[in-house]
Amino acid sequence: MLASIRIILVKTSHPGNIGSAARAMKTMGLTNLYLVAPKQLPDANAYAIAAGADDILDKATVLPTLDAALQGCHWVAGASARPRSLAWPELTPHALGGAAIAAASSGPVAILFGNEQSGLSNEELARCHFHIRIPSDPHFSSLNVAAAVQILCYELRMAFLAHSVPVAPASAETPATSDELAHFYQHLEQVLVEIGFLNPAYPKHLMRRLRRLYARAQLSQTEVNILRGILTETTRALSQGMVTA
Amino acid sequence: MLASIRIILVKTSHPGNIGSAARAMKTMGLTNLYLVAPKQLPDANAYAIAAGADDILDKATVLPTLDAALQGCHWVAGASARPRSLAWPELTPHALGGAAIAAASSGPVAILFGNEQSGLSNEELARCHFHIRIPSDPHFSSLNVAAAVQILCYELRMAFLAHSVPVAPASAETPATSDELAHFYQHLEQVLVEIGFLNPAYPKHLMRRLRRLYARAQLSQTEVNILRGILTETTRALSQGMVTA
Repeated sequence: MLASIRIILVKTSHPGNIGSAARAMKTMGLTNLYLVAPKQLPDANAYAIAAGADDILDKATVLPTLDAALQGCHWVAGASARPRSLAWPELTPHALGGAAIAAASSGPVAILFGNEQSGLSNEELARCHFHIRIPSDPHFSSLNVAAAVQILCYELRMAFLAHSVPVAPASAETPATSDELAHFYQHLEQVLVEIGFLNPAYPKHLMRRLRRLYARAQLSQTEVNILRGILTETTRALSQGMVTA
Repeated sequence: MLASIRIILVKTSHPGNIGSAARAMKTMGLTNLYLVAPKQLPDANAYAIAAGADDILDKATVLPTLDAALQGCHWVAGASARPRSLAWPELTPHALGGAAIAAASSGPVAILFGNEQSGLSNEELARCHFHIRIPSDPHFSSLNVAAAVQILCYELRMAFLAHSVPVAPASAETPATSDELAHFYQHLEQVLVEIGFLNPAYPKHLMRRLRRLYARAQLSQTEVNILRGILTETTRALSQGMVTA
């Protein structure tokens, strides 16, 4: 579905920004770059900044008008930093992700980014079904065009992944069982008494604190084995009166 | 709360990326930039690319070590593109936003970004409670460091804007700071050597495993004091050859 999404840069001034946008797209799995009336075509500097996203630049479609770039698209959204006097239906970047991915399942969709100095013109924005406002700090909303491409492509990819990929578990290791934990706590308590840290007459509070600490960590079997290894070694070292350091 | 978040760039090679990161931060309302051992300090090029985020560069804190930059931070996350042999608790960028904003309500937090060529080292990542994997396309995961800063700062801002609702902290206790944790790990390593559990020639893997375990628990100051009390008592018992049980 990402392949059905066109990233359209309109009247971009700096080839470096085109290279940077290509790299941003490719990191997020987008490949369809359209350049409408760029001031300069991608040059050596653009390729250097693209840092391996050369193929995106190589097969970028360069066209003289926005109309030509939008040919065949049934759903269009445009990034706009400034509020306009005539307010348009707006999407947050996050909402854009879901909406564009859904729309992409039924045909080509387009996301427009304007010129570095002035953004998209009112006429260009009027071609969009939705405006996307990236909620930057109102005191400094000067987002670089490639940075805006990066954020929106990131949200597109997140929405794309949310369609399919299962989430990995927190840890790949087998969690310790209740009885393994119970033996670990017994062992810990015994060694704390051995070293004189725990008064066996009043063990409860300290042991509860330590249980709470290790409960938060959700110990794996391997980790319980390591911790018990430390306890065993402590007892052995004590019994030999051994100090190696 | 965004003011409590430090963006820490570790060993950055290109001043242009520092300028670009400063701009990315400022568009999202973040202001605290730390530079750990940068190859070059921000130059004219960095300021040109910062495009108005000069104040962020002017007051950036430049330090020789990551330890110094983490001073006082109780919650640390690091961006990592590569999976590591020893997997760490991971956050998506979106989850990072919520978690970091919640953590920032109880003190300084840090987000680390590594060098352009190699990212964060295993040792640097071991200082983190969480790793952040930006889910880029596995066929082209070469995200520019400033682009990574842009995405994560965007998610931080989104969480900040959504965060009219207060989130309860994980524990009512004061969280341990990075330097308190660093001293604890040093102490732990020293005692593990004393009891003969750790071979000082090959400490890394075991210590990283233990760091990961305790990172998950997000230790409080009181808990660090208890654990260090156990370590001190172990050494004392050893030096007296004392076995009470």
